[in-house]
Amino acid sequence: MQLHLSTWPEVETYLQKSQGIIFPIGSTEQHGPTGLIGTDAICAEAISHGVAEETQGMVAPTINIGMALHHTAFPGTISLRPSTLILVVRDYITCLAKAGFTKFYFINGHGGNIATLKAAFSETYAHLEDLQLPSSQKVQCQIANWFMCGSVYKLAKELYGDQEGSHATPSEVAVTQYVYPEAIKQAPLSSKVASGHRIYGAANFRESYPDGRMGSNPALATPEHGKQFYDLAVGELSKGYLEFLNQE
Amino acid sequence: MQLHLSTWPEVETYLQKSQGIIFPIGSTEQHGPTGLIGTDAICAEAISHGVAEETQGMVAPTINIGMALHHTAFPGTISLRPSTLILVVRDYITCLAKAGFTKFYFINGHGGNIATLKAAFSETYAHLEDLQLPSSQKVQCQIANWFMCGSVYKLAKELYGDQEGSHATPSEVAVTQYVYPEAIKQAPLSSKVASGHRIYGAANFRESYPDGRMGSNPALATPEHGKQFYDLAVGELSKGYLEFLNQE
Amino acid sequence: MQLHLSTWPEVETYLQKSQGIIFPIGSTEQHGPTGLIGTDAICAEAISHGVAEETQGMVAPTINIGMALHHTAFPGTISLRPSTLILVVRDYITCLAKAGFTKFYFINGHGGNIATLKAAFSETYAHLEDLQLPSSQKVQCQIANWFMCGSVYKLAKELYGDQEGSHATPSEVAVTQYVYPEAIKQAPLSSKVASGHRIYGAANFRESYPDGRMGSNPALATPEHGKQFYDLAVGELSKGYLEFLNQE
Amino acid sequence: MQLHLSTWPEVETYLQKSQGIIFPIGSTEQHGPTGLIGTDAICAEAISHGVAEETQGMVAPTINIGMALHHTAFPGTISLRPSTLILVVRDYITCLAKAGFTKFYFINGHGGNIATLKAAFSETYAHLEDLQLPSSQKVQCQIANWFMCGSVYKLAKELYGDQEGSHATPSEVAVTQYVYPEAIKQAPLSSKVASGHRIYGAANFRESYPDGRMGSNPALATPEHGKQFYDLAVGELSKGYLEFLNQE
Amino acid sequence: MQLHLSTWPEVETYLQKSQGIIFPIGSTEQHGPTGLIGTDAICAEAISHGVAEETQGMVAPTINIGMALHHTAFPGTISLRPSTLILVVRDYITCLAKAGFTKFYFINGHGGNIATLKAAFSETYAHLEDLQLPSSQKVQCQIANWFMCGSVYKLAKELYGDQEGSHATPSEVAVTQYVYPEAIKQAPLSSKVASGHRIYGAANFRESYPDGRMGSNPALATPEHGKQFYDLAVGELSKGYLEFLNQE
Amino acid sequence: MQLHLSTWPEVETYLQKSQGIIFPIGSTEQHGPTGLIGTDAICAEAISHGVAEETQGMVAPTINIGMALHHTAFPGTISLRPSTLILVVRDYITCLAKAGFTKFYFINGHGGNIATLKAAFSETYAHLEDLQLPSSQKVQCQIANWFMCGSVYKLAKELYGDQEGSHATPSEVAVTQYVYPEAIKQAPLSSKVASGHRIYGAANFRESYPDGRMGSNPALATPEHGKQFYDLAVGELSKGYLEFLNQE
Repeated sequence: MQLHLSTWPEVETYLQKSQGIIFPIGSTEQHGPTGLIGTDAICAEAISHGVAEETQGMVAPTINIGMALHHTAFPGTISLRPSTLILVVRDYITCLAKAGFTKFYFINGHGGNIATLKAAFSETYAHLEDLQLPSSQKVQCQIANWFMCGSVYKLAKELYGDQEGSHATPSEVAVTQYVYPEAIKQAPLSSKVASGHRIYGAANFRESYPDGRMGSNPALATPEHGKQFYDLAVGELSKGYLEFLNQE
Repeated sequence: MQLHLSTWPEVETYLQKSQGIIFPIGSTEQHGPTGLIGTDAICAEAISHGVAEETQGMVAPTINIGMALHHTAFPGTISLRPSTLILVVRDYITCLAKAGFTKFYFINGHGGNIATLKAAFSETYAHLEDLQLPSSQKVQCQIANWFMCGSVYKLAKELYGDQEGSHATPSEVAVTQYVYPEAIKQAPLSSKVASGHRIYGAANFRESYPDGRMGSNPALATPEHGKQFYDLAVGELSKGYLEFLNQE
Repeated sequence: MQLHLSTWPEVETYLQKSQGIIFPIGSTEQHGPTGLIGTDAICAEAISHGVAEETQGMVAPTINIGMALHHTAFPGTISLRPSTLILVVRDYITCLAKAGFTKFYFINGHGGNIATLKAAFSETYAHLEDLQLPSSQKVQCQIANWFMCGSVYKLAKELYGDQEGSHATPSEVAVTQYVYPEAIKQAPLSSKVASGHRIYGAANFRESYPDGRMGSNPALATPEHGKQFYDLAVGELSKGYLEFLNQE
Repeated sequence: MQLHLSTWPEVETYLQKSQGIIFPIGSTEQHGPTGLIGTDAICAEAISHGVAEETQGMVAPTINIGMALHHTAFPGTISLRPSTLILVVRDYITCLAKAGFTKFYFINGHGGNIATLKAAFSETYAHLEDLQLPSSQKVQCQIANWFMCGSVYKLAKELYGDQEGSHATPSEVAVTQYVYPEAIKQAPLSSKVASGHRIYGAANFRESYPDGRMGSNPALATPEHGKQFYDLAVGELSKGYLEFLNQE
Repeated sequence: MQLHLSTWPEVETYLQKSQGIIFPIGSTEQHGPTGLIGTDAICAEAISHGVAEETQGMVAPTINIGMALHHTAFPGTISLRPSTLILVVRDYITCLAKAGFTKFYFINGHGGNIATLKAAFSETYAHLEDLQLPSSQKVQCQIANWFMCGSVYKLAKELYGDQEGSHATPSEVAVTQYVYPEAIKQAPLSSKVASGHRIYGAANFRESYPDGRMGSNPALATPEHGKQFYDLAVGELSKGYLEFLNQE
Repeated sequence: MQLHLSTWPEVETYLQKSQGIIFPIGSTEQHGPTGLIGTDAICAEAISHGVAEETQGMVAPTINIGMALHHTAFPGTISLRPSTLILVVRDYITCLAKAGFTKFYFINGHGGNIATLKAAFSETYAHLEDLQLPSSQKVQCQIANWFMCGSVYKLAKELYGDQEGSHATPSEVAVTQYVYPEAIKQAPLSSKVASGHRIYGAANFRESYPDGRMGSNPALATPEHGKQFYDLAVGELSKGYLEFLNQE
């Protein structure tokens, strides 16, 4: 069930049986010479829809722009400041908490979002406590990073070994190829790819990682792999979401 | 061309011929008993993609949550505070302005966004002036409300007369039916529908407009009408976008 | 009745018969070679006082600095950022709402304030809802732009035709001449005056409108015209204010 | 010279001979049973205009609402939060500094503004340093509290002794009587008046000072006294302003 | 009793007999060629611990970085913006007020903190009023500047006369020598020392006060003097703290 | 070398050989019935001083209050909101970056700080980029969690096995016992201790973890263990700091 494609009376009905909602959160950032700028949002959105179907859950509109300041030296990247993203998440959850939602499950496609999301959850719990809503003390938020699912990680290692890397990875590229086969890109990829540098500011990042990849070889990706990753992530996160709902 | 489905080198290439970008902006808010909660985002996104195709333009990810605080007494509505939306717009434009974009065309699907968007543009111009980027003084933003296109307005009057209303209108519902025929909803609609009340806070709004419609009869909508509205809006806004690009 | 010239026990007494208050809001910005920098505040203040007298209303101190960032490339202009003005309006209304005021009528003299004011109202309604004051759900705000009164507009067209323009207009200059006859300015005004450019940032505005006027010929203004405009605006807005008070 | 009643070319001319500007800052707050709510703004404004005449200075629009949160339990009081007032002052000074003003002289009528104004100056210096304007390092701000002028203080002691008190004082009431003789108020004033309590939050303040006065007997005020105070303050602050301008 | 060295059940027990807490607040800023950068925090902390012992009070962790923007042109200075310090103080007090603390006594070692602290108290009272905590209306904050104690001031005048100056004073340096005898510094000090300049921005400050001292001769300081100042301040502020606790 | 105990000329000298600075960051939060509220700050501070000695580094004043909102249902806990802590870190780093520091090493004692600190670093890099300081692109920040050092973790497992838990752990308590042997606390500790619950808001946390411990048995701690942990952490983090300095 998609919030987007529902009416408010349908949401009212849904709330009588569940107070959970799934938020896909991605990013709009460079993913190397062949990766789509929307990679993280595309993966998070597709997998979230899969999880929602599997679990009869409700999925909210995708947060397609996240915290990607370190990628902003590459054209096309759009990022919120952490302080802005915190307010965005606070506003989203507050609106829904007033309506009765209490379980917020963020299916995340971008490692760079994790820290700010966690900070946003803390900020939001305190904000809700200030507001003294009926549901204030019941609200719980969780991040589920699809790319950190055990089964996903295992398959990526099997298929790609060290060439999985950590950004513009073949696994995430594969998922986008599965979702958007019409947008598979080709470009020469140097076999020497930077890796192992820590992440600081945007200029430093581009200097460390000149073509945007971090140790990865996205040329290994195929849409078929993408389907496999998708299935594994949907399976594992569906279980995770149901556990989250059942948790006190 | 969709930013989402492009690579950063493709964006770099695009920037050599155009500095324009189209931002669909909608809202996630109740649209009466039969209108989709995502109506405003769905319309803005579909029309933006049409305009981008027509004009060889680049379209950014949809801002699917806008300023809809007055709808928050209905479950399923999500809104940013105006102060948050201002920061979001400022962050988006700043990132892209650093990359060289200068013409920001917001195709808007929600009347409630207009004031805050305009405020955000003013805030952003001043912010860019502070940053003294090479492009700071060249950045220009424009709102194009598809539902206010002359041709759209005329057709809505012809088809629906007074039953067009001003929220959960048959014209916008028709566009969503055209885009998502699988999500056409049915529900009893009282023939007496509230209208003419001013908009204040959320509780007051729900009291004034108990089922969420504002003077409209969305039962008149058909997917075929939707196609007509879509075509008119794409045509008119494509012209508008090209004029905007050519303006000094 | 002026808040400024009242004591707190007088306000307490006033609140027993009315919960309405009138806020003049203007701007401190260039108005061409002959228009006063305070034009918008002067007009809003004078007309507000007229309305207050006519309606036994209470008028608050004038907000004499508004949102005029696009005029800041001309010396003497002072502007708040939209994000600041939102906080100012939120603070003003919150204080008065705690005291029992519920009807806030902003008589506005500057087009550039409208978007930010509307955003501020939305922000404030949500803020008051958070605070859960006894009056939180009753607070209503309205903008009344004196220069958009039907009668004012009609007279301006009659007297000036196209030379009314849209900034540093003869009608607003006339009102300031009526209020401050001692401050009528003379300066050569080129008969060719820029018009029709859209408004973006401050540098761009000054480039588009080199002497600050937007299509207007303020040399047509006379104090007598000013009196006529003043009377029309006071009449029309007094009616508007009383309707606002009587509205549920 | 009043900024309000000037044109932008007049400001441009003024800037060639002086970079100084005078800001009257008051407050809109209860002043006991007989004091005007606008007392602090009225005094600051009148005295500022006097100083501007005496020194050929430019006076900006009055900041008529300041930091008066502790008075907000009395109806009619309007206050900015300190954090808001800091932004207001930052915005004002930044606009004028961009135009070339460097000497900001705040003639203040309200003790409660002092701390926040000083904090605002620090915030603004750092902000201007960030912006790296040509004038960033030259900007200087000063507060001049008219009620703390040596000559004013001396006269108040002579005329009223201990009955001067510290809020709703006969001296400030006298100045308002001189400026607005038509708004002299009468009300019974208990001869027992609270004094000596420290200032904390709004509810506590009203408990400590039930009628709003702090140790004062405003019944002693006369318009003639007001004229004397006005003359002394104008004299002393004119000297202060000229010294400030001449200081490196 | 130090909060730092207590357990939460000990705090719970303490709250049954006292709702007071002492906050040392200093600064991390240049103190001339021989003064420690931590001077203000060191003095405030030592004296606070003395007061806590004397009064059986609880002392919170030291706020060792305050508002010292005007010193930031000297390396090693760290300062919060006033707007940040306001939020810090608001957060601290809000947490403790929720736990039941109501009397906040800030023992301050830096003149530059005073304005912002006072602004922060006003901001916090209003914030607590918004939250409607059980203790909201009982919270009281007070600043006690150890260097402004009558007895301290008197001794400084006796020992140093005019050479006490107003920054990097022998009295504060003496206290740090008493607390950290191992960190007594030697450096040539010009006998001509700048004094009497007003404080504006950081660059201006360094120009006015090239070696960082303001009219002081810290070479006069001795650890024995430090002990004397310490004892006087502890005595006087202990009395002040007890009076504050007993005040309604 | 401690910044606190240095003079500004000493800092100037230090900057000629190193641009690195160590920031201890802890928290002020409940640590179970026997753990000190200052545990995290005490550990971070002691270890930072050890590292500074070992590496000839400079150590800044301890950030003794961090992000501990989830502990605020226990009295004595003080926490910043994430949004406040972000500003604090931004202000600290900005001041020091202006002076020439470029390598910021945060030795952290509290898991709850990690997310917000990382968000703060991203915010700060972008802020510095806006300011265009000479050092803007060179600034690098790193978090080093002493309790996650491999050697520390190994020893904790050896000494305590599962009874190490994850909050109010015997290892951190041991370090505080080593640093403050005079503040070793005794209290009955139930042998049944909650563990495994996820962390959400403050009320939920206290419900999940009624005495504040998370799966730990701090009664196993001894000062001798503390010395061992201290030595291991100092050794490992000294190496880490030097590597950080040498990294480009």
